[in-house]
This record gives sequence, structure tokens and C-alpha cells, in this order.
Amino acid sequence: MIDDVAPFDPAFQAALARLLAWRRDVRHFRPEPLPAGTLERLIELAALAPSVGLSQPWRFVSVETPARRAAIRAEFARCNAEALAAQAGERQAGYARLKLEGLDQAPDHLAVFADPATSQGHGLGRRTMPETMAYSVVMAVHTLWLAARAEGIGLGWVSILEPARVAAALDVPATWQFIGYLCLGYPMEDHEVPELERLGWERRAPQTLLRK
Amino acid sequence: MIDDVAPFDPAFQAALARLLAWRRDVRHFRPEPLPAGTLERLIELAALAPSVGLSQPWRFVSVETPARRAAIRAEFARCNAEALAAQAGERQAGYARLKLEGLDQAPDHLAVFADPATSQGHGLGRRTMPETMAYSVVMAVHTLWLAARAEGIGLGWVSILEPARVAAALDVPATWQFIGYLCLGYPMEDHEVPELERLGWERRAPQTLLRK
Repeated sequence: MIDDVAPFDPAFQAALARLLAWRRDVRHFRPEPLPAGTLERLIELAALAPSVGLSQPWRFVSVETPARRAAIRAEFARCNAEALAAQAGERQAGYARLKLEGLDQAPDHLAVFADPATSQGHGLGRRTMPETMAYSVVMAVHTLWLAARAEGIGLGWVSILEPARVAAALDVPATWQFIGYLCLGYPMEDHEVPELERLGWERRAPQTLLRK
Repeated sequence: MIDDVAPFDPAFQAALARLLAWRRDVRHFRPEPLPAGTLERLIELAALAPSVGLSQPWRFVSVETPARRAAIRAEFARCNAEALAAQAGERQAGYARLKLEGLDQAPDHLAVFADPATSQGHGLGRRTMPETMAYSVVMAVHTLWLAARAEGIGLGWVSILEPARVAAALDVPATWQFIGYLCLGYPMEDHEVPELERLGWERRAPQTLLRK
């Protein structure tokens, strides 16, 4: 038995599994703001994520001014129009039906970057795989996502953006690498099934474990 | 108030924060095996992770034969020797003191890949950022990590490996991209503070939120 080393009980394990199943990428937000200090608190939790060599390369930018939000919205519209045009004929109508972001309704916008130039961590663990810097930031985003959802806050990750244009629109340091753009707010509704599955775009596949 | 949309109570939120703080990258394992079916169950949970366009591009390989494990161990030794040699003089002794993997003791080894060639998801969301395929796999690894830790199981992510050599040693499909090599098993001990911090390699930094 492992009870002596497992400080989490079966009820917590079951609730965690329920959170994972219920998480969702949220694109429909209620407009009311999150309580003051919410982003700061979620970022403190996100910073508990694993990072290669303890480098903590995540950089969080709260996007607040109307001009910058408009620039991101225009960039999404441009990239999404290109993606729609690139769809195979029989899938174009299905793509057009999807709502892939909540930029207009979400009260909080968070742009997330990696800073691969950071000296924190002294390069440990990333010599053969420099991409682990970006991976560390992705785990911080995922940590923030779960922490937000546990409080009933929705999060949607927008990736239909050109990284260089996002960095330019937000005027961040030149060494920073864009990882993702997050919309945060209270969700309009909750679902156990991904929106892309409910709308007939794709279904989840069974998992397999290859043995070697 | 958000109680109507938040099915997770403050006790769960606090326990989740405790899990995030206590997680650790584990490199010291007890040798006893995990119960039969553990890997399969953890992979089912990992598959609840977010993935771009619902592409679920993660591919899990349980590395079991002594020959393949020896090849990975040799590859780590080679890369780690190079990393040690590349350390600045004053940090070399500190690097040499670190134990950066639990390959010899961990009862289970899991190699994780992305398959960017998958048709699942029909390319949605990854046109401007193809790296979101790898990011999706990273979130599956992180999901597996948290689910394992909630059961008292330790996980250590080994990145000091050359991706092409890992793929060759495990003879996986040519389109697969190596993401990380995971050691799993019951940990020798638990800690609130990262091992790299306890051993004086690096310390965690305070977080800042940039506003734009």
C-alpha cells in the first residue's frame, strides 16, 4: 500500500478526474469581470508548473487597452479567413459554423510568451531539446487552466494567430516567443463533451499504449 | 457569486493547489512495480488533455525490453557528459552533483511522442502554429503527471536525450516527434521544494504580470 506517501485521498482523485473531463476550451463567456486579483492569483499557481532546469521561462501579459485588443481581434480574423479558405470544399461549411474564440466577450485576455534567453536554470536540461523552454510555458498555461476551471472560470486558448504579429502588436521584448493567447471569464454554459465534438467537427479517439 | 457554475468546492481548490505545490520532478524511485493496469489508466486520463482541433496527437510507448532501456540509458549518459563538459568552470562541480534521472530504479518507462501527421482534427487551429501539436502532447504529459501524483506515484521527465536517437532506439514511425521520456514509480521521498533548489542549483523567482 502507498497510503504512507499519498496525501491525496480517493475522493480528491475522483474530483481531479472529474475536473479533467469537464475542463473544456471555453469560447462563450459571460461579460462580467473576474474579481480583482484573480489573474495575479492564477499566475502564482501557474508558476508551480514544472519547468526545465527550474528556468520558469513563462511571461504573462494582461492585454487591456482597446487598441491592443482590436489588433489581436483583427489578426485572428485575418488568420481565420485564411484557414477557412484553405479548408477542403466539403469541410468549409462546417468550419464556418465553428466559433473558435471568445475575444469579444471574455473580460480578461492573457498573452503568454516564453523567454528562451533567460539565464534562470543555467541552461540545465535544454541543451539537446531547447523546445523544452516552450514546453515549460505550455505546462504553466495548463496549470493556470485547471486552477481557473476549479474556480468555475472558463479559459479558451486561441492559436489562430501569427506569432510575430502578436509579439509586434503587444510590443514585447524581441527574445520572447509567443506561446498562446488566452481568453478568461465565466462561461455561458458547462459541457462534458468538447464543442468540436458537439458540432460534428471531430470525435475523441480511443487511446492505445504501444509496448516496445 | 459563481456557485451555480462551479461544481468544485473550496476544499477541492485548496487540495489542487497543494498537489501543484507538492508535485515535483521525481528522480529517486522505490523499485517495486506499479499495480497492473496503472499506465493504461493514467493514459486514459492524459487523453482528457486539451489538444489543438481535438487532434489528440499524443503517442505513448511503454519501454520494456532491457535492450531498449539500456539504449536510452546510454543515450542519457552520452548527452549528460556533453552537458557537464559544456558547463562554465565554476558550475561544473555543482552540475556533477545533480541526479537528473531515475532510469535505473523507476519500474516504468514511458516515451511520449507527437504525431503531427495525424488527420485527426483536420488541421484545425494549427495552420499558423504547427507547434501546437507538440504543445497538446505536453499538456497530456502534464495531465498524466498530476493524475499520477494524486495517487502518490512519482514521475520524472528526462530531456537530456537527442530526439532522433530516442526515436531510432525505439523504432517508432518516422513521422513521430519525440516530446519526452518519463520515469514512473513510487518516490523514495516527498518534498515541497524542487530538488534543484534544495541542491543549490537554482531558486524559484517571483512572478510578475505585465500590463499592456
